[in-house]
Amino acid sequence: MAVQPFTSEARRRESSDAASLDNDPAFRLHRGGKLEMRSTIPVRDKEDLSLAYTPGVARVCTAIADDPALAHSYTWTSKVVAVVTDGTAVLGLGDIGPAASMPVMEGKSLLFKEFAGIDSVPIALDCTGVDEIVETVVRLAPSFGGINLEDISAPRCFEIEDRLRAALDIPVFHDDQHGTAIVTLAALKNAARLIGRPLSDLRAVVAGAGASGVAVTRMLLEAGIGDIAVSDSRGLIYPGRPGLNPVKEALAADTNRAGLRGSTEEALRGADVFIGLSGSTVHESAIAAMAPDAIVFALSNPTPEVHPDVARRYARVVATGRSDYPNQINNVLAFPGIFRGALDVRARTITEGMKLAAADALAAIVGDDLAPDHVIPGPFDERVAPAVSAAVAEQARREGVSRA
Amino acid sequence: MAVQPFTSEARRRESSDAASLDNDPAFRLHRGGKLEMRSTIPVRDKEDLSLAYTPGVARVCTAIADDPALAHSYTWTSKVVAVVTDGTAVLGLGDIGPAASMPVMEGKSLLFKEFAGIDSVPIALDCTGVDEIVETVVRLAPSFGGINLEDISAPRCFEIEDRLRAALDIPVFHDDQHGTAIVTLAALKNAARLIGRPLSDLRAVVAGAGASGVAVTRMLLEAGIGDIAVSDSRGLIYPGRPGLNPVKEALAADTNRAGLRGSTEEALRGADVFIGLSGSTVHESAIAAMAPDAIVFALSNPTPEVHPDVARRYARVVATGRSDYPNQINNVLAFPGIFRGALDVRARTITEGMKLAAADALAAIVGDDLAPDHVIPGPFDERVAPAVSAAVAEQARREGVSRA
Repeated sequence: MAVQPFTSEARRRESSDAASLDNDPAFRLHRGGKLEMRSTIPVRDKEDLSLAYTPGVARVCTAIADDPALAHSYTWTSKVVAVVTDGTAVLGLGDIGPAASMPVMEGKSLLFKEFAGIDSVPIALDCTGVDEIVETVVRLAPSFGGINLEDISAPRCFEIEDRLRAALDIPVFHDDQHGTAIVTLAALKNAARLIGRPLSDLRAVVAGAGASGVAVTRMLLEAGIGDIAVSDSRGLIYPGRPGLNPVKEALAADTNRAGLRGSTEEALRGADVFIGLSGSTVHESAIAAMAPDAIVFALSNPTPEVHPDVARRYARVVATGRSDYPNQINNVLAFPGIFRGALDVRARTITEGMKLAAADALAAIVGDDLAPDHVIPGPFDERVAPAVSAAVAEQARREGVSRA
Repeated sequence: MAVQPFTSEARRRESSDAASLDNDPAFRLHRGGKLEMRSTIPVRDKEDLSLAYTPGVARVCTAIADDPALAHSYTWTSKVVAVVTDGTAVLGLGDIGPAASMPVMEGKSLLFKEFAGIDSVPIALDCTGVDEIVETVVRLAPSFGGINLEDISAPRCFEIEDRLRAALDIPVFHDDQHGTAIVTLAALKNAARLIGRPLSDLRAVVAGAGASGVAVTRMLLEAGIGDIAVSDSRGLIYPGRPGLNPVKEALAADTNRAGLRGSTEEALRGADVFIGLSGSTVHESAIAAMAPDAIVFALSNPTPEVHPDVARRYARVVATGRSDYPNQINNVLAFPGIFRGALDVRARTITEGMKLAAADALAAIVGDDLAPDHVIPGPFDERVAPAVSAAVAEQARREGVSRA
C-alpha cells in the first residue's frame, strides 16, 4: 500500500520556522531528523495482514511464550541496540539535557547503521539519577539486543554501566569510556611499534579523569603500560589526595608509581606519552620537555590540548580527535564492529578480553603502512568494522560468553 | 558506505534452530523480525560525517538547548511514536510477558508505517506496576512525539493512560480502548443510519468490561446512545453490585438505566444492539430474542461471541473482528490516521472531540455504499487514513490543542 502525505501541515510548518538556521548546512542536513523506521515485510492485502498481524502473529507470540529463546529468531529485538543517554555530557557541550542531545543520539544510530548495518534506537531519558537510569534501562531491556550508553557524565556513568552489566545478559557498553579506550590503545600500540619500544617501557600522562580518561587509563594498565600519571582539573591524582571520589581513589592506587604531585605539565617532564582527554590546554614547553620520540595524543574536541602543528615540533607521533589532521582517534573505528561482533554471536556481555581483541584487530589493520602520520586507520577504511567484529566474535566464543 | 555482512554467524544460527516452525508461513514471515532502522542522510565521506556527527551536530544541539522548540524541526522525535506494552493483555492470549508480545508490537509499528507513513518504535517493558510503567514512559518521552499504549490489561490500563495524559504534552492513546471504540462507533452510526433510527433511540448491550468494553461504552454514551447495559464475567453491571472496581463502579452509575441484573442474555431481550468484547459466547436464542432490525457486533477474536452466520439469521447488521467476514471492526482503520493527524498539527493531546471526529470521518467514507454488509470501510481502503487524519487535525486546531 502506497504511503501518501495526508495533509500539507508538516511541510507548511517546516518551511516557516527557523528558516535562517538552514543557511548552515548542518541544520539543513538535520531537518526532520536523520532516521526512519521501515518495515521489512509487505502488507499489500488481507492475506499479508493476517500473517503479519492477527490472527497469524498469535502463533508466533504463543511459541515465544512457551520458549523465550525463540524471541531471538522471530523478533527484531536481538539485532537492535538502544542508544541511551541522559544528556548530561554531550560531546564537549556538557549537560544540555535529553531533547538537545537527540541530534547526537540519532547521529550515533546513523553510524551504527552505516558502518555495521546495525539497527538502533536513540533514547534520551528525562532523568539523571543513577537508580532511575538503571531501573529504566532494565525495564526497556526486553525490547533490545544491546545497550550503548552515551554521553552520561562521570562519575555516574561508571556505576550505571557496572550495575547494568550485572543486571542484564545482553551487551552493555559505554562508548565514551570503552570506544575511546579501544581506539586509543590501538593507536598507542602502533605508535610504540613505530618507535621500537614495548608498551611496558613507556611512561604516560593522561590529562582528564572523566569517563574517557578513566577508561583509557584502565585499558592501558590492562595492556601492560609501564606507568601512568593521571590528572584532573585539580592536578595529578595520588593516593590520599583530598576530595577524591571512589573511582579516582581506585585509580590513584593503580597509577602514578612515582607519587608525582602538581600539574599535568610537571608529570610530562621526561614522559614518553601524553594523552589529553580533558578539555584543558597544555603549554608548548611541557611538550618540549617530554622524552625523545614522544607520543602526543591531544584528543579534546574541537580544541586539542596542544595544537598538532605545535606538538609535531617535539613529538614523533601526534594524534587528535579531529578529522582535519592525521591520526584521528575516532570512536567510529570501534563501536560499530564491537556491537556487530557481539550481536552476531549473541554475546551475553562485552568482556575486557573482547575489548582488547578489538584494539588488537584495529591496530593490525595499519600493518606495513605504519608511519608517524598513520598509526590508526581512517574512519572510512572498509576493513575496520569487519576486522573488529570478527575479533570480538571470536574472543566471545573463546571466553564462553557467546550463545551462537 | 556499503554495508557488508561481516560474519556468517547470524545466518548459520538462523538456519539451525526452529527450522520446523518455519513450515508455518507466519513463522517464516516473522523470521528476524519485521522492522529495520534506516538513516535518511548519506555518510559517504569526512565532509558528511563532520555535518551529520561531530563537529557539525554540536551546532544543532546548542541551538536546541537554547530553544527547545527547535527539537521539533531538527530531530526525528516529533514524528516518531513509541508503541508501549507490558505484555499483560496481548491479543486474546492474555499475560504472555514482554518478550512474547514483541511480534505484535512490531506488527503495530509495521501498520503505523504502511498505513500512515508513521515511524514508530516497539517497546515492551519488563514491569507491570502502574507507577513503574508511568514513570518509565515519562522518562522516555523526550525521545518521542507520541505514545501508543498497547495490550496493557484492565483496569491498570485506565489509570496508566490517565496519568500519562496528565503528565505529558504529547498524544497518549491506548489503542485497545480508543481505537476499538472509534471504529465501533463509526460502524454503529452507519448501522443506525441503515435501519433509519437515531443513536439516541437505541438500547445496547456490551459484553465485556475490559479495556475495549469500557472505552466503547464511554464513547457510545458520549455519542448519545439511548442506553447501554454492560456485563462482565459475573453478569450485568449495576450500581452497588458487590466487588466492582472503581472503573466499573463509575460505569454502573452511567449505564443500565433499567437496573437490569443477571446475564448478558437476559439484557439482550428486546435490545437493539449487541456489542461483544468479552471472549465469551452468546447463545443463538438470545440473539433471536433481540428487537427487529437488530445490530450484532460480535468482536471477539478469533472466535466471535456468536457465529456471524448464525447472527445473520436474526440481525439486520452483523460485524466481527475477522477479516473473512463482512464488516470487519479493525483498529487499523483508526490509529494510523489518528496519530498522523495529531502529529501533523503537533497536538498536545488527543481529545474526546478528536476521537469523535475520527469516528465521523470514518463513517462518512461509506457514504452511498451503505449496506448491511458494508457499514465500515475495509482495512485497505486508501481513503481511510487521509480522511481520519484530516478530521483529527482539524478538530485539534478547532479545540486549540494544536501547535502548528
